[in-house]
Amino acid sequence: MKNTLFKGIIAYPITPFDKDEKVDIVLYKKLLERLIVSGSHGVAPLGSTGVMPYLTDEEKEAITEATIEQVNGRVPVLVGVSNLTTEKTIYHAKFAEKAGADAVMIIPMSYWKLTDDEIVQHYDAVAKQISIPIMAYNNPATGGVDMSPALLKRLLEIPNVTLIKESSGDVQRMHYLKRELGDDVAFFNGSNPLALAAFSAGATGWCTAAPNLIPELNVDLYNAIQKNDLKEAQKIFYKQLNLLKFIVNKGLPRTIKAGLKIKGIDGGFLRSPLKPLTESEVAELELIFKELE
Amino acid sequence: MKNTLFKGIIAYPITPFDKDEKVDIVLYKKLLERLIVSGSHGVAPLGSTGVMPYLTDEEKEAITEATIEQVNGRVPVLVGVSNLTTEKTIYHAKFAEKAGADAVMIIPMSYWKLTDDEIVQHYDAVAKQISIPIMAYNNPATGGVDMSPALLKRLLEIPNVTLIKESSGDVQRMHYLKRELGDDVAFFNGSNPLALAAFSAGATGWCTAAPNLIPELNVDLYNAIQKNDLKEAQKIFYKQLNLLKFIVNKGLPRTIKAGLKIKGIDGGFLRSPLKPLTESEVAELELIFKELE
Amino acid sequence: MKNTLFKGIIAYPITPFDKDEKVDIVLYKKLLERLIVSGSHGVAPLGSTGVMPYLTDEEKEAITEATIEQVNGRVPVLVGVSNLTTEKTIYHAKFAEKAGADAVMIIPMSYWKLTDDEIVQHYDAVAKQISIPIMAYNNPATGGVDMSPALLKRLLEIPNVTLIKESSGDVQRMHYLKRELGDDVAFFNGSNPLALAAFSAGATGWCTAAPNLIPELNVDLYNAIQKNDLKEAQKIFYKQLNLLKFIVNKGLPRTIKAGLKIKGIDGGFLRSPLKPLTESEVAELELIFKELE
Amino acid sequence: MKNTLFKGIIAYPITPFDKDEKVDIVLYKKLLERLIVSGSHGVAPLGSTGVMPYLTDEEKEAITEATIEQVNGRVPVLVGVSNLTTEKTIYHAKFAEKAGADAVMIIPMSYWKLTDDEIVQHYDAVAKQISIPIMAYNNPATGGVDMSPALLKRLLEIPNVTLIKESSGDVQRMHYLKRELGDDVAFFNGSNPLALAAFSAGATGWCTAAPNLIPELNVDLYNAIQKNDLKEAQKIFYKQLNLLKFIVNKGLPRTIKAGLKIKGIDGGFLRSPLKPLTESEVAELELIFKELE
Repeated sequence: MKNTLFKGIIAYPITPFDKDEKVDIVLYKKLLERLIVSGSHGVAPLGSTGVMPYLTDEEKEAITEATIEQVNGRVPVLVGVSNLTTEKTIYHAKFAEKAGADAVMIIPMSYWKLTDDEIVQHYDAVAKQISIPIMAYNNPATGGVDMSPALLKRLLEIPNVTLIKESSGDVQRMHYLKRELGDDVAFFNGSNPLALAAFSAGATGWCTAAPNLIPELNVDLYNAIQKNDLKEAQKIFYKQLNLLKFIVNKGLPRTIKAGLKIKGIDGGFLRSPLKPLTESEVAELELIFKELE
Repeated sequence: MKNTLFKGIIAYPITPFDKDEKVDIVLYKKLLERLIVSGSHGVAPLGSTGVMPYLTDEEKEAITEATIEQVNGRVPVLVGVSNLTTEKTIYHAKFAEKAGADAVMIIPMSYWKLTDDEIVQHYDAVAKQISIPIMAYNNPATGGVDMSPALLKRLLEIPNVTLIKESSGDVQRMHYLKRELGDDVAFFNGSNPLALAAFSAGATGWCTAAPNLIPELNVDLYNAIQKNDLKEAQKIFYKQLNLLKFIVNKGLPRTIKAGLKIKGIDGGFLRSPLKPLTESEVAELELIFKELE
Repeated sequence: MKNTLFKGIIAYPITPFDKDEKVDIVLYKKLLERLIVSGSHGVAPLGSTGVMPYLTDEEKEAITEATIEQVNGRVPVLVGVSNLTTEKTIYHAKFAEKAGADAVMIIPMSYWKLTDDEIVQHYDAVAKQISIPIMAYNNPATGGVDMSPALLKRLLEIPNVTLIKESSGDVQRMHYLKRELGDDVAFFNGSNPLALAAFSAGATGWCTAAPNLIPELNVDLYNAIQKNDLKEAQKIFYKQLNLLKFIVNKGLPRTIKAGLKIKGIDGGFLRSPLKPLTESEVAELELIFKELE
Repeated sequence: MKNTLFKGIIAYPITPFDKDEKVDIVLYKKLLERLIVSGSHGVAPLGSTGVMPYLTDEEKEAITEATIEQVNGRVPVLVGVSNLTTEKTIYHAKFAEKAGADAVMIIPMSYWKLTDDEIVQHYDAVAKQISIPIMAYNNPATGGVDMSPALLKRLLEIPNVTLIKESSGDVQRMHYLKRELGDDVAFFNGSNPLALAAFSAGATGWCTAAPNLIPELNVDLYNAIQKNDLKEAQKIFYKQLNLLKFIVNKGLPRTIKAGLKIKGIDGGFLRSPLKPLTESEVAELELIFKELE
């Protein structure tokens, strides 16, 4: 199954909370609308940026439904459905498919370190219950499991696992994916500071929270690569690099919210234990925005 | 507040499931009873061994209540109440206190890497809502956060944070805890293969799943240390080292269940994605048991 | 001081030994001549590939003189002069300058971990004694010291430190160098499997042993980048990637010698403790060569 | 071959330099004499503390001869003879044996990462040329090679490799050595902050530079362990722990020299690139000494 639906810039919305730390669906839709009209080629709710693991089942379902409704077919939708147990992952994957998602993203969250066989069985059990594509997502820093290129290759033997997202920050993994998996599999980069290196290595797209703040620069980078203009891509990448590094180093939910505020946009509240950036961190972010003007 | 209740061997029960992967409370109580009468000095339900993060809120509450009822005051009870959000952690901590727990254990679970300030506020928010002691638990391998000795020291300024459990596997951390925190704070070792080094460094106790399989050897090690007999402690430690390494390397829930089966005891089923040990791993464990005879 | 002499592919010759493990200067000149006429833009004797640390002072001097004589001005020459002590480093740097080297390369070799101040003083002491440019070389894997981007920036304040070679394999370092140091400083990539990512990030050149085996592919990659043709660069890079990974993983002196033998060229003997590749490793290398045809 | 000669505290002398950075043999003998009469059970010249890799062949020979002469049979002498090449290692090993050393210490120094087979052949080639015992020394932090327990076991099959020194700082390695190698092999700890853990794990001795500054505390720790008095050992260990950590963190040659100066003893000069501790570091060391009084 060759994947042609997803490519380019896949934008992660944040999940905003009200002052009582309840999910604010009205505000969520407003923030999502900004992403849809920003030029991004797809949206991905319930990712790390959307603090998916901090949400209850009901909250996840509300976000999923609100996204499909707001997007209304304008761009493809990739819904995060990862969960510690296989049963719950299946539950959310089925919910997403029924709600109208174009694909689901699954990271093998781990408390106990899972064996390769357990991970394959986990994906396989989910894949059997849905018919939309699955993006296998590797991010040792948040998920606690580092899936080797060899394991990713095994996962791709499952019929509807057709997308890979690699966020380990290791360029060699991307080289491997490109070389070993060939053109039938789309691999996406999930490491913001590696955006240029990943596109240079042949990535199909970039899953990123950055379009909440700098959508034009993100899309321009993709376009320069599409035009085979490396020098232009370099120029655009170096322009946004400091922002990309900052939002990763300080945590996406905190920094996107702070960045929206600097831009005069209400991003709502965070859910504890997450707390807003400190004043000096906000000042640092303001300086980075100034350099972009 | 000097902690005198907990010391010695604190045993972790597993959480057994039936063949449909539902929690089996009747079997749980049987397995817990074995630990209570094994000579262990305390029990700690809803730890990593008890696959706490894989359980629903209702299941956690059922395990908590079943534990208090079965123990019935014979040994102190330390209940795991960790959760990704502060609100849920408070909820479970209050439940545990009301149910009759002697203390709660909290690891700062992380999807997003938490700042030191966020971690302190997290513990502080929970501490304000309960009056029983809190054990701050550091285990980067499962929780994804590595609390520095300096951060642990900050946490101990919160009045009812009076116990520390260190599972990073770094002897130097234990030296720091012993030296910096003095005799007012009990520090517990949570790294099985470091049991001898930790006691040699002055640990108050050892939180371990091993008493499900080899309670006498665990208690004998503690007793040798109490008698200041290092040579005897060495002998007892090296006898059980291979088993301690095996259960850590292959994962506590899987290995305890497999070990119980080898001993002819029903340990129930695992919850997916966790799967039983392979046949060759079971054979390896059988060999380790043989060496113990 | 803007550096314009060095750019493109800088080739590392190996140092061949005779069957008694003595340096074989006649064979060295033959192997060097292959590199000079291969299209490489410069040569760099006494690097890691040339097992410089395994040579006596007299052997290093002989190699330096033989290189200058054989090159005879056809390409620029960059001589490795690193040594554990400052005194010896100065000695070899002065020798290289007098012999006619265009620049010297210095990695802060370490037995004892050096402080940043010690490293700056080390470079400064050498720089004061010579007038040709110095390439500061960062390679934690061989040198045992990891110079931070901030330290590299300090070193560049020393007037004749004008070239940087980064072999830590971290793309983010290259981004930093490019962004912080601007166009006045040439940064070279020394990590073979990162050749594409480094050129994409804006590297001036690539210091590599690969031209001993595949000079056309190395030069073609550089040329594609010069023509701003990323798609062509990708194609050429992926063609040679397996070879680049193999020669790094198995060690440059061993693999270059084995590769030369496969190509029917005498590469001499190694000096102990280094030993030839095993038969199965040679077979693996033969397969990689076959794929290149 | 069971080793009974070496045990307890093996003290490392520093190599002092005069103001022109030449080796000062007269001062060396004075400093060595302090160690001999300090109660240490052996001395080990030309270790890391003695900056062996920074010395010329002639300087190493002078230090070896001066040591044998000064010791004059009062304690056993273990001479460091490590070198990057096998030929030079053999040369220095033979020199040490002829000069009267009781054993030699060899760390497989690496520029190129050596394979296990290369390391075995390296030791074997040296072992065949001498008849005194060899201590195989593992210290990834200085030597750049990490010898696995399995490799150490292979080395011990070489007849006169009868001593192991483990400085990786990993307690589990010590457990492995003790358990797998049995009582026929003496294993020594080379990690100062692990002294208590290592003795608790069954180490035969402790190779350390600390006796240059606190010989009584070092010897007292060993004696407490010999008397099977863990509580006393703990007390003595925690007393010296801050000093042990400081001398490791700041580098043994720099800190021993600074410590001697604080005690009013001339330790000579360092050889560049090594530089003296900064003023604030000296002040920190003075404070640590004060706490010891």
